[in-house]
Amino acid sequence: MNKSLSDKIRNIEPYVPGEQPGGEGIIKLNTNENPYPPSPKAADVIKELNAERLRLYPSFKCHQLKKALCDIYKLNENQIFLGNGSDEVLAMCFMTFFNSNLPVLFADITYSFYDVWCGLFNISFKKVALDNDFKINIKDYLTPNGGIVIANPNAPTGVYSELSDIEEIIAFNKGCAVIIDEAYVDFGAKSASELINKYDNLIVVHTFSKSRSLAGIRVGYAMASKELINALEAVKNSFNSYTLDTASQLIAAKCAEDTEYFNLCRQKIIKTREQTVSELEKLGFEMPKSYANFIFPKHPLIKADELFEYLKKRNIFVRYFNKPRINDRIRITIGTDEQMKILLSAIKDYMEENNISIK
Amino acid sequence: MNKSLSDKIRNIEPYVPGEQPGGEGIIKLNTNENPYPPSPKAADVIKELNAERLRLYPSFKCHQLKKALCDIYKLNENQIFLGNGSDEVLAMCFMTFFNSNLPVLFADITYSFYDVWCGLFNISFKKVALDNDFKINIKDYLTPNGGIVIANPNAPTGVYSELSDIEEIIAFNKGCAVIIDEAYVDFGAKSASELINKYDNLIVVHTFSKSRSLAGIRVGYAMASKELINALEAVKNSFNSYTLDTASQLIAAKCAEDTEYFNLCRQKIIKTREQTVSELEKLGFEMPKSYANFIFPKHPLIKADELFEYLKKRNIFVRYFNKPRINDRIRITIGTDEQMKILLSAIKDYMEENNISIK
Repeated sequence: MNKSLSDKIRNIEPYVPGEQPGGEGIIKLNTNENPYPPSPKAADVIKELNAERLRLYPSFKCHQLKKALCDIYKLNENQIFLGNGSDEVLAMCFMTFFNSNLPVLFADITYSFYDVWCGLFNISFKKVALDNDFKINIKDYLTPNGGIVIANPNAPTGVYSELSDIEEIIAFNKGCAVIIDEAYVDFGAKSASELINKYDNLIVVHTFSKSRSLAGIRVGYAMASKELINALEAVKNSFNSYTLDTASQLIAAKCAEDTEYFNLCRQKIIKTREQTVSELEKLGFEMPKSYANFIFPKHPLIKADELFEYLKKRNIFVRYFNKPRINDRIRITIGTDEQMKILLSAIKDYMEENNISIK
Repeated sequence: MNKSLSDKIRNIEPYVPGEQPGGEGIIKLNTNENPYPPSPKAADVIKELNAERLRLYPSFKCHQLKKALCDIYKLNENQIFLGNGSDEVLAMCFMTFFNSNLPVLFADITYSFYDVWCGLFNISFKKVALDNDFKINIKDYLTPNGGIVIANPNAPTGVYSELSDIEEIIAFNKGCAVIIDEAYVDFGAKSASELINKYDNLIVVHTFSKSRSLAGIRVGYAMASKELINALEAVKNSFNSYTLDTASQLIAAKCAEDTEYFNLCRQKIIKTREQTVSELEKLGFEMPKSYANFIFPKHPLIKADELFEYLKKRNIFVRYFNKPRINDRIRITIGTDEQMKILLSAIKDYMEENNISIK
């Protein structure tokens, strides 16, 4: 490629998602997918899906899906924005709301896509250090800024900030957009969505990929004042008119209505999480209290990258981040009880093989 | 909303897609959808789709779909980029390839999303006037520029530029990216995809929405040198890791393989197009020769906006663009023979009611 051409081409370091290993017998605890299938309504929708309808563009207004979400959150349809997974929703939010010379604030340890989007859209940002317990310090966010994004519960830590703390940050920052990324909120935390009618600078982002067991359909959504949603829609419609395909809209709408299954599923995961934490603590692991569908343990005598590789050889995929402050931990997605049993057994084997005494 | 907040929010004029009217008895000839259903393989895939699989993220590599496309175009998988409809693919291309201070060139009459993307990504651009027959003048593109995008066949005109002309433009502009947007190429035109191994500055963009009858699944793709595809992938992975959901990938892959159905379908549309042109010409309409699944007629005695509204009242939706140089025309998507018969009959009624003599 000649220099004139390569000079015009964007050169950027992308976000790297967790591995997607295929094959039989793999225990996949590395990308926070739900171990349980989606609501049986998903299969019903697929069964009734008319292939002939696919010749037409999907619904532009996504009325059915928006209505289902409005019923859950007691909002109006003009307070809901839909996107191709919460990553697209967040990307659109960054493009729409973070346009000033002041830096956007987010934690030093959080979803690593935030700095990637800032890089992509040339948004200046400042990382704010979490404390040693991975908690945010509210005061850090009570300062002039170009916008704020907080993952709550946070990833990859699982740490939850109380809604009253979040509200203090939103209330102080009325002159800028505050995005609360609640991808993991359904596993025991409280959503800021109840504050949407109170603050017109608040955006709450959710996804169908985790608690709804629908990572495969790519649906995420933002909830905010109708003014912010209008601005988001304009940016989205300047990018791609139809981001949600027909099948995904229908599946998401029907599954959103199935509250009973949803509650059952997330309660199972919460229960398994607490059991797993308790078992790991018996083995000497420590970890912040998780409100998500993953945990973030470390062990004083175990090198996290070694354990990560060991588990991989046993076909158990967890996540290891080779980054400051967190390279002594692994992130484990909560699977089924059976999967957690196999994981714990493998960890015990590792400890025995390495002469690490079990308390 | 306070001024400090609104100052930080992007304010942009979005692209406006054609209406998506619902209801029975509507003849929808306004968004260039295919009147025929997708390949029967689409229904097969849906029938076999396992809802449980949707709990997992879609394939990141999209191997199956890329392979199907490689087989068609005789390319390698690293020469294919997939996106959520060709609009997303084009948006990513604009972000990736148009990074210089020189203006990007495109026609004054073409797909109106091009200036919207330039606006969104702050890309400077210059519109180059088509001649009075809506043809491009090659010389206009043999000048320093920041990149070129040509819809071929063009929309909304349907006009096709010979591949030799396109090649002259690509060959002259080796120092910048040349995007050939071939959304409508399968209706009788020749694709520049055969030039991909010859020019590393060429990007050819296709879609499943038109000739493949799959607007509802949102799949588009770019073909280019592996260096350009690499750059595109990095930008895409800095935006959204998983843009193609599981069902869409599978449906697109299977339907791409069904060459026989594909050929049958597009030949039917070409035949209907030629018949419709001939009938309209008998009524005194004139239009550029179309190589797309739409036509762009005008009539010396008919106001296009009036005919557009008249047809709408009869439940026939076509497209009218209230823009200089083309506000005397309507764009009609080619439907089934039956739909075209109803359209022609309605046009004749309009002419009779308005005392416009039929030749």
